[in-house]
Amino acid sequence: MNSSAFSELGRRTIDPPISWLMKTALERPELISLAAGFTDDLSLPVRETRTLLNQILSSAKTAQKTLQYGATAGDAVLRRLTVERLIEQDVGALERGLYSADNLLITHGSQQLLYLITECLCDPGDIVLVEDPTYFVYLSIIQSRGLRGRGLTLARDGIDLEHLESVLESLKREGELKRVKMLYLVTYFQNPSGVTTSLAKKAAALKLLRRYEKDAGHPIYLVEDAAYRDLRFAGGDVPSALAVSGHQDRVIYAGTYSKPFATGIRVGYGWMPSPVYEVAVRVKGNHDFGTSNLLQQVLVQALSSGLYHKHLAILQRRYQKKARVMTQALRENFPGAVEWQEPGGGLYVWARLPQKHKSGRKSGLFRDALKMDVLYVPGELCYADDPTRLPPNREMRLSFGNASEANIREGIARLGKVLRALGI
Amino acid sequence: MNSSAFSELGRRTIDPPISWLMKTALERPELISLAAGFTDDLSLPVRETRTLLNQILSSAKTAQKTLQYGATAGDAVLRRLTVERLIEQDVGALERGLYSADNLLITHGSQQLLYLITECLCDPGDIVLVEDPTYFVYLSIIQSRGLRGRGLTLARDGIDLEHLESVLESLKREGELKRVKMLYLVTYFQNPSGVTTSLAKKAAALKLLRRYEKDAGHPIYLVEDAAYRDLRFAGGDVPSALAVSGHQDRVIYAGTYSKPFATGIRVGYGWMPSPVYEVAVRVKGNHDFGTSNLLQQVLVQALSSGLYHKHLAILQRRYQKKARVMTQALRENFPGAVEWQEPGGGLYVWARLPQKHKSGRKSGLFRDALKMDVLYVPGELCYADDPTRLPPNREMRLSFGNASEANIREGIARLGKVLRALGI
Repeated sequence: MNSSAFSELGRRTIDPPISWLMKTALERPELISLAAGFTDDLSLPVRETRTLLNQILSSAKTAQKTLQYGATAGDAVLRRLTVERLIEQDVGALERGLYSADNLLITHGSQQLLYLITECLCDPGDIVLVEDPTYFVYLSIIQSRGLRGRGLTLARDGIDLEHLESVLESLKREGELKRVKMLYLVTYFQNPSGVTTSLAKKAAALKLLRRYEKDAGHPIYLVEDAAYRDLRFAGGDVPSALAVSGHQDRVIYAGTYSKPFATGIRVGYGWMPSPVYEVAVRVKGNHDFGTSNLLQQVLVQALSSGLYHKHLAILQRRYQKKARVMTQALRENFPGAVEWQEPGGGLYVWARLPQKHKSGRKSGLFRDALKMDVLYVPGELCYADDPTRLPPNREMRLSFGNASEANIREGIARLGKVLRALGI
Repeated sequence: MNSSAFSELGRRTIDPPISWLMKTALERPELISLAAGFTDDLSLPVRETRTLLNQILSSAKTAQKTLQYGATAGDAVLRRLTVERLIEQDVGALERGLYSADNLLITHGSQQLLYLITECLCDPGDIVLVEDPTYFVYLSIIQSRGLRGRGLTLARDGIDLEHLESVLESLKREGELKRVKMLYLVTYFQNPSGVTTSLAKKAAALKLLRRYEKDAGHPIYLVEDAAYRDLRFAGGDVPSALAVSGHQDRVIYAGTYSKPFATGIRVGYGWMPSPVYEVAVRVKGNHDFGTSNLLQQVLVQALSSGLYHKHLAILQRRYQKKARVMTQALRENFPGAVEWQEPGGGLYVWARLPQKHKSGRKSGLFRDALKMDVLYVPGELCYADDPTRLPPNREMRLSFGNASEANIREGIARLGKVLRALGI
C-alpha cells in the first residue's frame, strides 16, 4: 500500500517559511525577532477596538447582525466604504464610476485574496511573474500550487521594464506565453525590499502586458498587492494601478485592514474586473461563504467614525520613530560595506552584504545570529525558484514592526557584532 | 484571443447555491426564509460577547495578544480547550492519550476545514463518497474541484452499510478504488435530513473502508462533519468516530463553534491524524497563515469561563421550542401525504412529497412558494451529481434556525396552502 492518500498539491506543499518563522518567534520569547511581519504591539488599538465593539454590540441595529452570517462577498457597507477610500486615495487620477463596490470582495486577510485569485487563474505549470525579491508567503502559494515563478529585476522605483520585456520575449520564443497568467507586484514599501513602484511603471507594465496578450491568448493580469500602502510615513502617496486610464480591466488590487489597524482582526479585500470577481466570489463561497461579520463590523465602525484614520496617523508616527531607531542603530553598528535604504513606510529595512558573503538559513551569519538570540528573514527566502537566474544569498529582511525600540537597538547591535566577527 | 485566463478550477466552478440562497434571503427582508442555515437572531449571545470582549480587551495579558497575529495552527489554549471538550464528549469510549491538541487545527469556520482537507487529499477525478442527501455546500466543493461524488443511501441511523459495501465493490471491479479518497458524513442531526449516525455505523464504516485500502493503495479517510453536534435538544450524545477503537488514524473530525455560539464569529476546527494534519497546516499557512486571533480569544474566554456551556443550554431550549413550533405547524398545515421526522437537534426538518410530485428550483411548488414569499432549500440541491443513480426531486429542507416563531408558523401555513393547491 502506498503510504499517502494525498493530492498532488498535498504531496507538493512544503512547510512554508512563514509558519516556521512565526512559530520560532512565538515559542522563544527571549528571542529578538527582526523577522516576522508582526506589527507593533504597543500601538495596537486596544482601547479603540473595545469602544467600537461596545458600540456595535450595544446597538440593537448592529448587535445581532454582527454575530450572524453575512453575504459571501462581504458586508455591503464595508465594501462601499472601502471603495470610497480607494477613490479618495487615487483621487484625480480616475473616473469615480470605474470603482464599483460591486467588484470588491472582502476576505479573511489579503492573504486569502491572493490565494483565491491564484486559484481562480492558475493551473499547475502556469507562470507568475514576480519581483526579485518578493513577498515570501506568496512564493509558498506558487510552490504549493505547482506554478512557476519568474523573477524580475527590481529597481528603486519598481521592476525593471526592460527586464520584463525581455522575459516576455523569451517566454514568447519558448512558446510559454500562454502559461503566463499574471504579474504579481507588491507596490508600496515592498515586502521585503521597501521599494515603492511609481505610477509610470505601473502604467508601462500594464501596456507591455497587453501587447503580449495576443500571443498569450488571454488577459494577463497585474495583481497589485498594496498591503503596506497605509503604512506610509514619508513622501506622498502614489495612485494605484486602478488609476491607469484604460487598463482597469486588467488590474486586481489587493488591500488589507489587518496591518494598518490590527493584525488580530483579519480583514482584507480585493478589487477585480467583473469576470474575475464573479469567479473569485464563487470560490470564496466554497472556502468559507464569507468573512466573519464581527471582524467586518469593527472595520465598518472604525472607518465610518473616523477612528481608522486617527489610528493610522498614530501608527505612522510610531513606525516612523521605530524605523529611525533601526536606521540609527544600523548606522552605528553595521559595517559600511552593508548596503541598505532609509524606508519611507512599511515595516522593513532590506540590507545587502558585500559580494561573497552569505545570509541564508545555512549561513554562518544566520546561525551565529540565532545563537545570539536574533532572528531575521534570510533574503534567499524571498526569491522565486526560477531556474533562469541564480538568486542572491546575501540579503536580510530586518523588521522594525514588532520589536520594541530597545530590542531593535539591541538586535541590530548584536547583528553588527556578528557581521564584524565574520570579517565584514 | 481566448476570452478567459482562468484556471480549470476557475472555469469549472459554478455559482454555489449557498451564495444564491444567502443573497436572496439578505436582499428580500419581506421573505420568510426557511432556507438558509442562519441561526436564531434572538438567542445570539450579544450581551455575553460584549462582556467577554471587554474582559479580553481590558486585561493587559490578553488585549495585545488578541489584536496581534497568532500561529497558523491556532491559539494553543483554544486547541487544548477544544480537545478537552472532545474528550469530555466522547468520554468512556477512548483513551485520553489519543486526542492530542497537536493534531487540532483551528480554521475560519469548519467550512474552511472541509475545503483544506479536500484540497490536501483529492485531485480532479478523485471520488468522495457522500450521503444521499448531504450538505450542499460540500457538494459545491466537489463540483469546483472536479471531484466525483458517489451517493450512499441514508437510513434512520446513518448510511446503509450494504450500499456502502456494494459501491466499494463496484468501484473495485471498475478499477476505480484508487480514486476513492474519503467518505464524507454529516453525523449529527444531518444537514439536510436530520439523521444522526450511530456509533455502530461509524465503526462498521471504518472497518469496511479499511478492508478496501489494500486495493485502493492508500488510506481512505472518514471525514466526520459534526457541525450540529452541540445543537442537540433531545436524546443523548453519540460518541464521535474518533472513539472507535483502533481506527483513529483514519478519522478526520470537523467541528465548529460558529453555529452553537455565534455565526458572525467564524471559528471551526479539525482533528486529524498526524500525516494529514501536517499537510493541512501547511496549506492553511498559504490560505491565511492563521484564523483571526480576536475570534479565537472570544472562544477561549467563552469556553474557559463556562459561558459557552451556559449559552448552549439556552440555545438548545430555544431550538427545541422552535422545532416544536415548526412540527406543530407541519401537523396543522401540511397534507398527511408529506413525510417528515421530528428533529432531535440541528436546524432542519426534511420533508418528502409523495411520488410524482416535484420540489426543485423549476417546480411549480418552488415558484408558487416564492410568489407567496416563502423560500426553502429544494432537496435536489443536496444530492451529488452521481450518474449511477437518479436522485429524488421531491424533498424540501425546512429550517427553523433563523425564522421567528411567527414566521415559521406563517411560512409553513403558506407552504401548506401551496401544497394543497397543487393537489397534494
